[in-house]
Amino acid sequence: MRVSELGEFGLIERIRALAGTPRKAGVVLGIGDDAALLRIKAGEDLAVTTDAFVEGVHFRLDQQSARNAGRRALVASLSDLAAMGARPLAFTLALALPAASEVRVLLEIVRGLLDIAHSEACPLVGGNVTRARELSLTLTAQGALPRGRALRRDAGRVGDRVLLTGATGRSALERARGRVRSVPEPRLAAGRALLRLPTVGACLDISDGLLADLGHICRASGLGAQIQKSALPSPRGFAAACRRHGLDPDALLLGGGEDFELLFTLRAGAPSVRALSRRLGVVVSEIGRLQPGAEVEVAGAPVRPGWTHF
Amino acid sequence: MRVSELGEFGLIERIRALAGTPRKAGVVLGIGDDAALLRIKAGEDLAVTTDAFVEGVHFRLDQQSARNAGRRALVASLSDLAAMGARPLAFTLALALPAASEVRVLLEIVRGLLDIAHSEACPLVGGNVTRARELSLTLTAQGALPRGRALRRDAGRVGDRVLLTGATGRSALERARGRVRSVPEPRLAAGRALLRLPTVGACLDISDGLLADLGHICRASGLGAQIQKSALPSPRGFAAACRRHGLDPDALLLGGGEDFELLFTLRAGAPSVRALSRRLGVVVSEIGRLQPGAEVEVAGAPVRPGWTHF
Repeated sequence: MRVSELGEFGLIERIRALAGTPRKAGVVLGIGDDAALLRIKAGEDLAVTTDAFVEGVHFRLDQQSARNAGRRALVASLSDLAAMGARPLAFTLALALPAASEVRVLLEIVRGLLDIAHSEACPLVGGNVTRARELSLTLTAQGALPRGRALRRDAGRVGDRVLLTGATGRSALERARGRVRSVPEPRLAAGRALLRLPTVGACLDISDGLLADLGHICRASGLGAQIQKSALPSPRGFAAACRRHGLDPDALLLGGGEDFELLFTLRAGAPSVRALSRRLGVVVSEIGRLQPGAEVEVAGAPVRPGWTHF
Repeated sequence: MRVSELGEFGLIERIRALAGTPRKAGVVLGIGDDAALLRIKAGEDLAVTTDAFVEGVHFRLDQQSARNAGRRALVASLSDLAAMGARPLAFTLALALPAASEVRVLLEIVRGLLDIAHSEACPLVGGNVTRARELSLTLTAQGALPRGRALRRDAGRVGDRVLLTGATGRSALERARGRVRSVPEPRLAAGRALLRLPTVGACLDISDGLLADLGHICRASGLGAQIQKSALPSPRGFAAACRRHGLDPDALLLGGGEDFELLFTLRAGAPSVRALSRRLGVVVSEIGRLQPGAEVEVAGAPVRPGWTHF
């Protein structure tokens, strides 16, 4: 069935039925009114992040299942909350779609969103359905964190160690191969553990690519950085798989994007990488240092981060 | 200049410069990090509303100025907060646009958003810029209100008086004439005054049209309603202007949409319309009653509300 047959309110009803009534503490009112109502605890700040996912730009339904596209979209939003050290509260969805869209495909995307919503306790509480020439999802996620304690990208200092959860490059490799199957894990627990670390500096999540995102930390903090290429984590078989597809493994590790790992800095002398990995619940690698200047250097040579939408 | 020349981050920088640094109490961190940070007062709930505005669907730049389109977009979002009785905190913007878009036009839209952001004390605190085949804005507005006191559409009861702020039809008449010049006022003060009224019932804002939105109240509250057509406020000259353009004034009053007035109910015997108008700071009209059943009747005959996006 197409959306033109089901109608706007029919589609909203189907989404609402899939989403169910959120039973999460902190959600006062979900889908169906002019606005959703949320409640945070005393002494908390609210984190708000908005991301758009456009078919053909951010996801391709000939490269991945609709359900996977939905999963990855909410992971991307929750990753922004993770990078602030927030716990997720709820999210809203603005769905724009051509009238000829298949309802089945749309509901698969919604099911993908709800898979992550359930596993990360971040219910869908509202949104908007509208007609458009192309399919897109805009997600706004809300999180809460202890007042004045958010992990920010402008908190880097000269001499900070630069660290990374997990590894980069996998999403880029999948896109290059035309088959996006993985769903990165939003590093929510790691972000909250970082927030409690007294030696934490700057933090963000890797969405544009390691170098581009390190550039964001540098610009916001008024610093430069150096990366040791040999220190970059490269999963077993990754380099070989890249070469089989004629791809440069280093380019993917450094520029890939959509890895949703946390890139963060710690004041010098802070916990060992091993202790930190235990504390954050994920393998952590130390890949470089913040330094004076404004450039990001890889293996001693300045580089220019690449990714942009235009 | 086109966006393809300025680039994604260049455009974000221009928007950020226009928006400035929000100095509003309650905004901890604005544009530039993974998420914005907001702070609400103890004893408040948070209201969250998301709306998309697609060129060619929600606005046409050959019918109105880009600045007006921006103004109307934020008014629509704030109107949802008004309908819950919330005070605005801040909003985020997801901007999707073709690479060939004129930067000047985009910034005019942003200026329009900021006009309303300033007049209603609701700063732009974050968002997202992405490439797309068509131009769209998705706004998510955040508001705060006393805990558990939100105005909801499911709070109507049999016998409630049905009331309306201001008048409907003007936006529809402008669209029909091909010139959208007005900017409705979001009824924020009226919504907050209503929230303090012990006899208040249901409330929403008129975005789909008076009948369609009254239908939302009826469905949510499990009731029907009757409207007295003679009681509908019709501004001086409105009927004549409609007829000059071959339009049925009643159809526009009842079905127009995008008026952003508040439609609400009060328990029987509550303040007079005159006292209420004074209290809400806007002319209020009593236009009907909630009654048993599931239908909306106009002048005694059941009607079917019309507007849908598909």
